[in-house]
Amino acid sequence: MSSLAHRPRTARPLLGIGMVGHAFMGRTHSHAWRSVDAFFDLPVQPDMRVVAGRDAARVETAAARLGWAEASTDWRELLDRDDIGLIDICTQGASHAEIAIAALEAGKHVLCEKPLANTPAEAAAMARAAAKAAENGIVAMVGFNYRRVPALSLARSLVAEGRLGTIRHVRARYLQDWIVDPEHPLVWRLVREQAGSGALGDIGAHIVDLAEFLTGERITGVSAITETFVRERPLGVAGSGIGAQAADPSTSGLPAAGTTTDLTAGTATGTVTVDDAAVFLARTTGGALATFEATRFATGRKNALSIELNGSRGSVAFDFAAMNDLWFHDHTEPAATAGFRRIDVTEPSHPYASAWWPPGHALGYEHSFTHQARDLIEAIATGSTPEPSFEDGLRVQRILAAVESSAANQSLWTPVET
Amino acid sequence: MSSLAHRPRTARPLLGIGMVGHAFMGRTHSHAWRSVDAFFDLPVQPDMRVVAGRDAARVETAAARLGWAEASTDWRELLDRDDIGLIDICTQGASHAEIAIAALEAGKHVLCEKPLANTPAEAAAMARAAAKAAENGIVAMVGFNYRRVPALSLARSLVAEGRLGTIRHVRARYLQDWIVDPEHPLVWRLVREQAGSGALGDIGAHIVDLAEFLTGERITGVSAITETFVRERPLGVAGSGIGAQAADPSTSGLPAAGTTTDLTAGTATGTVTVDDAAVFLARTTGGALATFEATRFATGRKNALSIELNGSRGSVAFDFAAMNDLWFHDHTEPAATAGFRRIDVTEPSHPYASAWWPPGHALGYEHSFTHQARDLIEAIATGSTPEPSFEDGLRVQRILAAVESSAANQSLWTPVET
Amino acid sequence: MSSLAHRPRTARPLLGIGMVGHAFMGRTHSHAWRSVDAFFDLPVQPDMRVVAGRDAARVETAAARLGWAEASTDWRELLDRDDIGLIDICTQGASHAEIAIAALEAGKHVLCEKPLANTPAEAAAMARAAAKAAENGIVAMVGFNYRRVPALSLARSLVAEGRLGTIRHVRARYLQDWIVDPEHPLVWRLVREQAGSGALGDIGAHIVDLAEFLTGERITGVSAITETFVRERPLGVAGSGIGAQAADPSTSGLPAAGTTTDLTAGTATGTVTVDDAAVFLARTTGGALATFEATRFATGRKNALSIELNGSRGSVAFDFAAMNDLWFHDHTEPAATAGFRRIDVTEPSHPYASAWWPPGHALGYEHSFTHQARDLIEAIATGSTPEPSFEDGLRVQRILAAVESSAANQSLWTPVET
Amino acid sequence: MSSLAHRPRTARPLLGIGMVGHAFMGRTHSHAWRSVDAFFDLPVQPDMRVVAGRDAARVETAAARLGWAEASTDWRELLDRDDIGLIDICTQGASHAEIAIAALEAGKHVLCEKPLANTPAEAAAMARAAAKAAENGIVAMVGFNYRRVPALSLARSLVAEGRLGTIRHVRARYLQDWIVDPEHPLVWRLVREQAGSGALGDIGAHIVDLAEFLTGERITGVSAITETFVRERPLGVAGSGIGAQAADPSTSGLPAAGTTTDLTAGTATGTVTVDDAAVFLARTTGGALATFEATRFATGRKNALSIELNGSRGSVAFDFAAMNDLWFHDHTEPAATAGFRRIDVTEPSHPYASAWWPPGHALGYEHSFTHQARDLIEAIATGSTPEPSFEDGLRVQRILAAVESSAANQSLWTPVET
Repeated sequence: MSSLAHRPRTARPLLGIGMVGHAFMGRTHSHAWRSVDAFFDLPVQPDMRVVAGRDAARVETAAARLGWAEASTDWRELLDRDDIGLIDICTQGASHAEIAIAALEAGKHVLCEKPLANTPAEAAAMARAAAKAAENGIVAMVGFNYRRVPALSLARSLVAEGRLGTIRHVRARYLQDWIVDPEHPLVWRLVREQAGSGALGDIGAHIVDLAEFLTGERITGVSAITETFVRERPLGVAGSGIGAQAADPSTSGLPAAGTTTDLTAGTATGTVTVDDAAVFLARTTGGALATFEATRFATGRKNALSIELNGSRGSVAFDFAAMNDLWFHDHTEPAATAGFRRIDVTEPSHPYASAWWPPGHALGYEHSFTHQARDLIEAIATGSTPEPSFEDGLRVQRILAAVESSAANQSLWTPVET
Repeated sequence: MSSLAHRPRTARPLLGIGMVGHAFMGRTHSHAWRSVDAFFDLPVQPDMRVVAGRDAARVETAAARLGWAEASTDWRELLDRDDIGLIDICTQGASHAEIAIAALEAGKHVLCEKPLANTPAEAAAMARAAAKAAENGIVAMVGFNYRRVPALSLARSLVAEGRLGTIRHVRARYLQDWIVDPEHPLVWRLVREQAGSGALGDIGAHIVDLAEFLTGERITGVSAITETFVRERPLGVAGSGIGAQAADPSTSGLPAAGTTTDLTAGTATGTVTVDDAAVFLARTTGGALATFEATRFATGRKNALSIELNGSRGSVAFDFAAMNDLWFHDHTEPAATAGFRRIDVTEPSHPYASAWWPPGHALGYEHSFTHQARDLIEAIATGSTPEPSFEDGLRVQRILAAVESSAANQSLWTPVET
Repeated sequence: MSSLAHRPRTARPLLGIGMVGHAFMGRTHSHAWRSVDAFFDLPVQPDMRVVAGRDAARVETAAARLGWAEASTDWRELLDRDDIGLIDICTQGASHAEIAIAALEAGKHVLCEKPLANTPAEAAAMARAAAKAAENGIVAMVGFNYRRVPALSLARSLVAEGRLGTIRHVRARYLQDWIVDPEHPLVWRLVREQAGSGALGDIGAHIVDLAEFLTGERITGVSAITETFVRERPLGVAGSGIGAQAADPSTSGLPAAGTTTDLTAGTATGTVTVDDAAVFLARTTGGALATFEATRFATGRKNALSIELNGSRGSVAFDFAAMNDLWFHDHTEPAATAGFRRIDVTEPSHPYASAWWPPGHALGYEHSFTHQARDLIEAIATGSTPEPSFEDGLRVQRILAAVESSAANQSLWTPVET
Repeated sequence: MSSLAHRPRTARPLLGIGMVGHAFMGRTHSHAWRSVDAFFDLPVQPDMRVVAGRDAARVETAAARLGWAEASTDWRELLDRDDIGLIDICTQGASHAEIAIAALEAGKHVLCEKPLANTPAEAAAMARAAAKAAENGIVAMVGFNYRRVPALSLARSLVAEGRLGTIRHVRARYLQDWIVDPEHPLVWRLVREQAGSGALGDIGAHIVDLAEFLTGERITGVSAITETFVRERPLGVAGSGIGAQAADPSTSGLPAAGTTTDLTAGTATGTVTVDDAAVFLARTTGGALATFEATRFATGRKNALSIELNGSRGSVAFDFAAMNDLWFHDHTEPAATAGFRRIDVTEPSHPYASAWWPPGHALGYEHSFTHQARDLIEAIATGSTPEPSFEDGLRVQRILAAVESSAANQSLWTPVET
């Protein structure tokens, strides 16, 4: 009989995972946990134990669909279970602090979606909790997934190797267009109590983190403008779009935007209490000038995260519209053959790439999360500190706070709290 | 107690899958079977039962890593099992006919990797077996996965809707560079007995199929040149690359290239017996001129599948280097604002896209296989005929044969056998 | 006898031109005057009478090379001549006010290179002189040549036609890298007395003007940072580069940078007294947010002027690296086929294009000046007011002044003087 | 008195030029002669003496507009004049041989537009005349202007320096769409007697020449298809477009297409007697495979000349849509940072570029002719043989003839006559 019983490829410890929230981010994280072990040689085996959400029917469906062994309507339950070692927080920002701190105190490793929290105070409390937990070998990581797009990982390597020399400019933008239509309803992401801020915290946070990650420097201060172009919007929930996909009250413990919608009339409106767009200038510890723009009103730009660094010896440029490419200009080359080269970041020598397909076979968005999962598991297994840490997340939060402060204060230069 | 036992989201029948071969294509197919149920609402639930391979240790490892419940060293065993309804053939082309025909005769649905076979005769036998099996509601599909890259699915829709008018030109290229180095070893893909042909069958087959798929027309004849630039290569197996990843004798039943390698000396060489490149001209039933190029010697082009169609009313262009984009020119627009537009094929209204992420979040190469899995499951559940069929695969095989015939006959125009 | 004496194609009045300065801008203007009559049907015939410069030998050489009938070492001489109707000022900014005002008072039409002046006070005086001259039918124009790149002219048309709706964002950058090397000498463009400002006035002025031109709105205020990355540089004149080409003391009446250079030692350095880079935020009268960046330290970006506008109904994007292309996104189209389209702005229906080559035959940088010459001649002939006017130039100057003021005042929001 | 009489910058001999034909090519050549002396340091001074055309009124207008001192209705007259040293032939191909041979026999240097002639026999006679004239120091050049697009000149240099190694592939296309509309009239370019061939000779000639120029190799044989998609077209002359611009009977000595048009009825049609498209395969002396496509039916592609070379050590790619860019992949670099780099071919160290503007300031289409004029003048002055020679033009003609022969003979492999 040649048929063989299933046997683990190696005898490895299990890492039980409990995920809280199962909307957009819950889907990306589930896909990562489901995939990571098939592509990477991991020292421990991830085990998708429980997904938690508030609505019983929905969380059960999510569990079945996303591959979790069990569903729960109470995230606190997960902290008591011995078979769960990692809490993966995919809820709205407003609930991050409570869940993360409780999980760390319960001795669970934590992966927390960005932004780390809705306020610097919450983020600081989380960072303190993480520091304390670290003493017991418990790790905490914040989910700035774009760091692990291979092209951006490569960009970081080039900077760290000195290929760019002294950084002079950072140019970062994150452009979307999903609420250009004034009839787009007032989803939770447009309500300050739930979302903390608007484009600034949702997408601006990513480019702020990337600027620090790629340069290896710190942002020291900002000058900013924020704007809300459409101040009143219909209540209700959109049929599609980012806001709609995440508009799940069961994951946040908060009333959903739109619960008071008069569906028959369609005349009820509510006030947008977050920014639609944020633009800001910054300086870094190394003396670079940085410009940032985060907006949901860049018509035709769907998820256009782009960042460029110019240094004394070279430059890199990245555009998420072609996420497997890194553009690199080496200024030390003869001018006759110098130019920005398109590096297709799928060679075996590239970050993460040897785990995947032959060169030239593109990876998609979701595998930034797979790489995140892989690196977190490695960190847990080896007892090292994963990046980005809660400290990193706190710093981003303080930069966002400085942006809001400057915007409220006539764009006055505002140092980032340290 | 709020924790809930796992329950299927719906009560659905299972579709047990047995996969033969677990190299490059086995990995893509496994990822598809593992993922498809999480993203699409499927009428039956795929069940990854058994993976078969020749080497016991390797197939066991593959099963564990890729998520198969069992491993087997005998693919025939899979045909006897009642819990397996679909045989997924991911072996080298030389073994396709034997496995596929046996599976169809055993009443199993079949998904067979491309090219359908190494010769038109084999492919014809397979098509006959598929036709016979269809009488009993058994379906067969060939794995031209690129049809299900959303941008190419959209291109097909635009052509079918008449947005391009009468097609005048097809311009298709598939360029790679993985054997530019003459020291690259003689892997199985360079041996006629195992691979059938070289660049022609491996990658040329894809663009031939796409040309017919996108136009909805048939290729009627060809004029061709093929070339082998490097005729002698070292024996042995490369450390990386497409050839190496698939050079698994356990999956083919054939001796591996390189089994006679003198590893200590490294001086033994063998003869390349397939083409390194094939270029050919063609006409279609609708009167279009088509040009094709398939090569493994396009230095710097890693997996550069590109295709453009020009019609009397418009054009579409696609380049796999930016696989989520379709370029569309609508020639009926005023000239002042006409131009090729970059459609980011990630809107909910785009093929397959509503299953995934919000607009602008790129999909990767592997989800062409996920979409293939989804459509095959739908076809099985609904009793419809999946495309591309074995007839489609046979036609591609006959075109490839015409190419080889023309190339051997001074590029003389060679009608495609019908 | 079939040979025919030369006869004008039409009996047209002559417009005698006197040009002051013959460095980089003098070369572009001369090419424009030499070419414009061959491509456009002009109501008057431009006549290249005299070029003025300070150094006799150099200006003579320039006259012969650039196609001027005569050379002069005294620009005032040109104002006395009856055969000169237009003074074309291509000198450094420091001398613009004196020459332009004298010319206008002498009843000459004036074309003045940008920036209009080195200070708002000078610019205001010039604008007053222009207003007064206009009463006598004398016109004045400032040379923001990029307005007449056909792609940008088309962009303006689309905005004016309402194709973009309400403008929400302007994103403008002008990136160069010609002084990245700290050994690049202290040319005149790096000296405040001669250049007024650095990247801000030299290239930032262009994107400020374009922002107002394209939107049809006014910039109301700014928040800014400026920076000088390399504060000490060797004296002397570079062998090549923008600065070197224009470093002609004969045209400015000012001592040239580097006249005190110790060529044997090469150790003498001087202080850079202008900005290397300026970044700023702005708002427009229509409520849009605008971001600007002008720098000479964007390694690998040679002359990278780019600008994008996002409106409620659509967007346009332009990058000078592909100066014949305008990218246009029409947001009113069905999402399934919407996307930024590349309009090759060379169709007969496009601005200026019918004068040139068949569609698809690119124009170069210099023909923005040819178009400027054409439009100025048309304005002179028809008695209409050419744009951009000295008022437009003054407004740009005031915006630049607000930028410098904000930068000196902790980036505080600074309204633009009106 | 500081005003200075005009003096030549140097005492240089004059080169009197007589141009025959003043349609599209006459305009580009005139612009080149008018501009070249302003940008390049030439050993002789071009002197635009006479333009010849058949229609007196039109040629007079052309002379005035394009800058020629005199107009003539008899090109033979130009051969008798002592003040004319160079005959520049810009007529339709049918008249090239007669004019060029007469001019060479009259001891005039000749620049002849491409294709050299309408048949190999004519071209051979021209090449013989050129060889004979060369014995007397008379030079002849054929106007394959694209060789002198700086990016393509640079590409040739890289190949010549061995940066590409052994060339494996050439991929050349020239796509236009100006007669996609079946109502486009039967202009002279669609009539075999006048145009020789269709897309093949008009634009295919360019890419054939470029393939040989860039590789430094010879095309040894071809396999081809040609096609005429629209076989009957209305008589008459189009209001715009390439064909219309050149439809000048005065320059060709031939009756114009459309002279029999019934303008009132619009029902008269005529037969297209040339190809609309030609596709062909080729081999080179170095063993490369080459593919070519020339068509006027590539909807949305206006003047899309593109060419790529893949060699054992690297690749270059060029697309006229971004004519100042050359893409270069250096395969000898580490894979981690290798990729096609965009070289902006405007650096002082680039071909022709130091004559123009600072880096990053794009040149347009027409300056390929300016560079051609410059190189021809240099060759005349130094007594060297300019390239491409009439021998080069003859070889192109023979390749085109082989294409037509193969297309008429079932695409059979057809060696190029030598």
